[in-house]
Order: sequence, then structure tokens, then C-alpha cells
Amino acid sequence: MHVTDLIRKKRDGLELKPEEIEFLVIGYTAGQIPDYQMSAWLMAVVLRGMTRAELAALTSVMLNSGEVLDLSNLAGPKVDKHSTGGVGDKTSLIIAPIVAAGGVFVPMVSGRGLGHTGGTLDKLESITGFNVNLSAAEFRRILAACGCALAGQTGEIAPADKKIYALRDVTGTVESPYLICASIMSKKMAEGIDALVLDVKTGNGAFMKSEQDAAFLAELMVETGERLGKKVVALITDMDQPLGRAVGNSLEVAECLEVLDGEGPADLRELCLLLAAWMFRLAKRVATLEEGKALAAEMISTGQAREKFREIVGLQGGDAGAIDDPGRLPQAEYKIDVLSPAAGFVTTMLCEQLGTASVLLGGGRERKEDSVDPAAGMMIHKKVGDPVAVDEPLCTIYYNSAARLERARPLIEQSYKIEAAPPPKARLLVHRVIGE
Amino acid sequence: MHVTDLIRKKRDGLELKPEEIEFLVIGYTAGQIPDYQMSAWLMAVVLRGMTRAELAALTSVMLNSGEVLDLSNLAGPKVDKHSTGGVGDKTSLIIAPIVAAGGVFVPMVSGRGLGHTGGTLDKLESITGFNVNLSAAEFRRILAACGCALAGQTGEIAPADKKIYALRDVTGTVESPYLICASIMSKKMAEGIDALVLDVKTGNGAFMKSEQDAAFLAELMVETGERLGKKVVALITDMDQPLGRAVGNSLEVAECLEVLDGEGPADLRELCLLLAAWMFRLAKRVATLEEGKALAAEMISTGQAREKFREIVGLQGGDAGAIDDPGRLPQAEYKIDVLSPAAGFVTTMLCEQLGTASVLLGGGRERKEDSVDPAAGMMIHKKVGDPVAVDEPLCTIYYNSAARLERARPLIEQSYKIEAAPPPKARLLVHRVIGE
Repeated sequence: MHVTDLIRKKRDGLELKPEEIEFLVIGYTAGQIPDYQMSAWLMAVVLRGMTRAELAALTSVMLNSGEVLDLSNLAGPKVDKHSTGGVGDKTSLIIAPIVAAGGVFVPMVSGRGLGHTGGTLDKLESITGFNVNLSAAEFRRILAACGCALAGQTGEIAPADKKIYALRDVTGTVESPYLICASIMSKKMAEGIDALVLDVKTGNGAFMKSEQDAAFLAELMVETGERLGKKVVALITDMDQPLGRAVGNSLEVAECLEVLDGEGPADLRELCLLLAAWMFRLAKRVATLEEGKALAAEMISTGQAREKFREIVGLQGGDAGAIDDPGRLPQAEYKIDVLSPAAGFVTTMLCEQLGTASVLLGGGRERKEDSVDPAAGMMIHKKVGDPVAVDEPLCTIYYNSAARLERARPLIEQSYKIEAAPPPKARLLVHRVIGE
Repeated sequence: MHVTDLIRKKRDGLELKPEEIEFLVIGYTAGQIPDYQMSAWLMAVVLRGMTRAELAALTSVMLNSGEVLDLSNLAGPKVDKHSTGGVGDKTSLIIAPIVAAGGVFVPMVSGRGLGHTGGTLDKLESITGFNVNLSAAEFRRILAACGCALAGQTGEIAPADKKIYALRDVTGTVESPYLICASIMSKKMAEGIDALVLDVKTGNGAFMKSEQDAAFLAELMVETGERLGKKVVALITDMDQPLGRAVGNSLEVAECLEVLDGEGPADLRELCLLLAAWMFRLAKRVATLEEGKALAAEMISTGQAREKFREIVGLQGGDAGAIDDPGRLPQAEYKIDVLSPAAGFVTTMLCEQLGTASVLLGGGRERKEDSVDPAAGMMIHKKVGDPVAVDEPLCTIYYNSAARLERARPLIEQSYKIEAAPPPKARLLVHRVIGE
């Protein structure tokens, strides 16, 4: 097999055999195939696409390039949830304890903030002492102990994905639904799960702006999962405005605690119950989605989910006291309200721009080597459809650096559109379910 | 400017500005942009194409990456010819002396055999002592002395093309008319010429198999030349069978001497007169193509072209005695006829396969580091449309290695198709002229 022949084959729109894909990916991961050949092939994939069989083969070889957790010693179903990323998207921190409390193992490997979106690991690390850098053995031990573990991708999991992702990042080959699918699914399948619920975001704050693109990615992931023998369901959910009200790491953790207390914003609570219900259903813990929602709600109302979260935090080295006293979470030194310049209704929020503002405040990274300010962010008071008076606060910015505030503030101010008439109708929180 | 932004721009089918293309090419040539980013961009170019403005900018920056010969001290027009490559395509060795003898400077930078096609440099080197490795100064001196110089690309000419071509070769990005155009035209424009005649081959022995592809490449080159201020004309000519009868380095030189003697195969002679006529016309040495053909024929009939070739050979260190005694050219130790298995007419010749057979005999290189056997090759006795009897020789193979003969012979035998009825009609030698 010659690498250039395989590049040309993909370039010319022909289908590669599984062994050809394996030759490329294994050779590249082992350092036998140079970056410049892999990047040419990746660009050909971006522009030519892949067949479903090619995609399953790519995902499989990436998955098998590293350790695949064997959780067969844990008696019970193992289910995870993955979100494609958004602004204020903090559902993992709520769902994981709900589902674990409901008797389903949740081995959850998460990521850092990417671009304008937040990352579960950054949020968890705003809890003092919380360790997300678990070895495979630690991960397994904590999972066995409390039914859930929350960690980052180790070098042991899907190293091919890690190397390919780093190359994609610098070669303009990130934006391919096929490569995104293989990257997500290879990592998720390596968790040793039985089933997976995907939360595919769409809207102006998502990576997939159009519902069509989001649905296409969702279909690819559902089919790839099934070709690899896992049940996968994908929900296409709204990201035309932040989810909940908190954007920023410790602010989001505090909001998660509100939801686990039976309070918190309705949209966030609703989506968490639904995602948890799907996880219960795929785990065969319940027979219907309604039963799943009821079970999830019960885990909240009885305090079991909250207790489970405290347990996870404790096992992963975090300050469990912060669960009962969110005041122990990092607090910003300053805050300032953004006031509405007009009376009327919020008709649009530029959600990606709000995410970028949160990054500029310190809530995310502009460069990989940057550190994150756990306390920086914003609380959204007015969302799409809400009426506002002149000078009424649209949101409150939390910050530790005046220079950062000055960069972020105009973005936030300009992300709100206030008009006299209310927007035609509210966008659905959940647009479609794929893979039912 | 960020490299990834430029890669993404091309990936998404947008037009790059000249300064963006310059940033990429200059940065890559200087080693500031890594191979893996350039190869991703090249693959995006292969699959997305370029606008004519982008192509002119790419050609210009590649051209200006190295030395551009300043021939303004030479009083008189400077014109070159370039062929996209074929089998038995030896016109350069005939045309250069004709046109130089006719009073037009011919600064000709040529290449080695590529794939199944022969290369002018390899043919010239079959003349003992002929030196094709001229510095820019030597090239200029010989050109001034005799009106013509024949050499290979030096590191001083278009180094960006040299580096990019090496990368394309290993990343499946050779086959793009845009990149082929920029590569050819940047080298040719660096010769300090006023005008250029292109011989774009089409047919089963050419790189561009279809006339449509050949014409598209020709149009790109004509327009690119004109955007860079040079008059360019392209002839689309036939490569469905070898040109002339000789295939192989010293055999082809001997055939060139026949044409310079007023003999030789009609197709080769006709094409040489036509290409030379175009060069005379673009040089404004004649007013019409007919006058150009007459002048070219005169240069042959008076022996001036032959004398000019002897002069060039002498100035470039070659054995000028071989011009009068082709027996001094390298001769193969063995020869063997390929006999016709049937009576009828030659209806098809697999020309690329014949070229590959010549490479296998030693006439070309299978790997870059291989040396060439100057004497190996074949003389074609029967061409498309010719009647043949059973056991009549179709061609004669010249070889020095029985092992090489065994590899090449079946390819040659299988490249002839003999049928009872003659082929419908002869293919035109010249299909179209573009840029008139």
C-alpha cells in the first residue's frame, strides 16, 4: 500500500477499504506516515466526504488505537452523554449525578473549552481541588465506587484522535462532520459504554449553525455508533441563546447546584431531565421516556442527585463543602450590569459572541497555554422573548480585570437586539430526536 | 495573516488575494510555513481550483521566488517552446537549432523523463560529454554565443516551484491543471523570454488523456502568460501514438539528426516545422505562419539548422562528431523484433504502455535515483492505420539487459491492437490552436 495512492483515491472521490484506512491511521499515529501526507488526506476527506462504511472504519481504528475501558466487571448498564458544545451548556454536571443516582454507571470523559464554548473540565476545576486528570485505573475505581467518574481524555484513550486532532487544528481541517464524528465517537466508544445520548447543538451559538448541518452530524454519529454495536440517540437542541442563565465556570457550577436543589432556570432543568430520561431509557432502567423523566425528577426531589454530586466531588479530591455553600466557589472581585438601551423585547441574542465575551473575560482560553479565571463570566437576566424596560439590566458581568472587561463589554452589549415587537415565536428547546 | 485562515478560505472556495498567495508561497519556500500546512492548502487547490487571478498571482510569486534571467542585453527576440510530455516527443532538439539558426534566441530550460514520458535532458545526455547542468552565467554565455542554450532547471530558477513540486509528488497533489500551469509557466517565464509556444499533448500517451482536459490546461497557460505580459500560443497535439519512430534517448537523437538532414518521419517533421513557424511568428521574425514554415524548412534544406545543432553541442561540451556520425551515439548490444501475431491493420497503440516499456528497458527512471541507459529503447515500424502481415515486424527493441527485455516485451506486444479493418480515420496531428 502506498500512502499517495490512498490520498489520490480519496481525492478522486473513491471509497477506501477498512484496511486502507487502518494503514493510514495506524501508520500516522506510529509516526511512519508524515504530517504532510496526513493533512493532504484530511483535506481530501473534508472536501470529498466519506461513506458510512469508511466513517465506521475510521472511528473504529481511532478507537482501537488506544485503551478501550473494559467495564464488564461492573454489574449494570453504562451510559454516557455528549454535547457538541455551546454557551452556558452545563448539563453534564447535573445529568451525571442524576443518572448515577438512578443506578446507571456514567463513565464520562469530557473536554476543555473550545473556541467560544465552555468545557466541562474547566467548570469542574472551579471547585477547589477537583482533579480531572485521572489515570484509567483511578477512573475505573471512582466509577465503581460511586457510579460516575468525570475526567479528561488521557493519552491512553484514542491516541490517534489526539494526534489527528492536533494536526486538523493547524491545517484547516476541523470543520468536517465526518472528522468531527470520528473524533467524538472514537473517544466515547473507548469509555466502555453500552449506549450514548448525544446533545447536538444548533443555532448561532453552536458549531453547527444550521439545523440541517446539526442533523447531518447527528445522523452520522447515530449510524457510526450502531455500526460499532452501540445504541446511540441524538437530540438536536437549541443554541440560539445561552442555556440557563450562567455563563462562566464557577457561576455555572452554582447554577447546576440550583437545579440539583430543584430550582434553577426552566430551560436548563427541562433539557437535563430529558437527556437523563433518554439515558435511563437506553440503559433499560425504565421502559418509557416519561418514566425516565419521572425517575430523573425523583432523583432531584429526593436530594439523591445532589448527594451523588457531593460524593463524586469528594472522590475526585474536590471541596465537597462547596456543594452546600456555593459561596466557597471562586467569586469575582467586581461585577457590573449591562443595561438595556431601549424598551421592548429581546428578539435576538448573538450567542457565539456572548461565548467569545466570556472567553475574553477569562472564562476560556484565547491560546492553548492560557489559564482560565474560574470566577469570570456573566449572569443573563433577559433572554429571547423577554420584555425589558430602558436601563433594566440585561445581564451582569463578573470580572477580575478591568482590561478584560473593556474587551468583552462591547461584545455583550452588541449581542442583544431589542425591538418594539416580541419575536414571532419561541424557538423549540428540542428540535428533533434522531436514532429513536 | 494566519496560514490556517488561508487554508480554510481556499477550502471553502473563496478567492485568495495576491498578497495572501505570496504570504503562503514565500513563507513555505523560506521554511516558515511547514509542509503539513502547504499540503493541506495544495489539496484544497486541487479540489476547489483557482480563479485566473489567483493562478496568475501564484505563478508570479513562484517565478519571482528565484532568479529571472535578464536577457535584455541580447538584441533580438527570445522565444521558447514547451511540451507537456509524451512518448517519442523529441521536437525540442530539432526546433531549438532551427529557430536559433533563423535568428531568434531560444533560451530553453528542460526537464528529465517523468513517469512514462521521456525528457529532453536525458536525450541530450546520450551525446557523450553534453553538459546540461549550466549555471545561469554559463547559460547566458552560450545563448549569446550561438542563439540557443539547452539546460536543466537550476536551484536559482523558481525555487518555490522546486520545493512545492517535491511536496506535491508525495501528497497526491500533482494532478491539478492549476498547479501544473503554475509550475510550467513559472519556470518558463524565468527564462527571460518574450513569447512561448506550448505543445500540449492529448491522447492515451499524454498526461491529459482527453482533449477537453488538454484544452483547459492550454487555456490556463495562455491566459496566465498573458496576465504576466507574455504572448503565449498553445497547440493541442496528438499523443495517441509515439511521435516519429524512435523511443529511447540515443535512438531519438539519431532520428532528430535525420529530420535535420531533411529526412525522418513525416509526423515529426511536420510538427517541428509548425512549432518552429509559431516561434518565428511570435518572435515577429515572419508575418504569417506560412512564412514561418517556409523559413523553418529553409533552415533545414540549407543545412543551417544542422550546423547550429553541431555548434550547440560543441559549446555545451558534447561530442560534435556524433552529429555527422550517429554511429558514435551509444548503441545497444542487442536488438529483437516484435512480430505481428496477425494480418490486418494497426487500429490502436497503447502509447503510455509503450512509454512505460521504454522506461523498463532502461530508457527512463523507475525511481528518482536510477541512472538511464542511453541506448535502450525501440524503433516503431508500424503505426496506427498501417497494414501488417503475419510475422511482419511491428517494432524493434534495443536493449542491454535480458532481464529488462523480459519485463518490457509483454507490454510492447500487448500495446498493439491488430484488426481486419483499418481504423475509421486517422487522428489529426494538431487538434486545436489556443491563444491565436
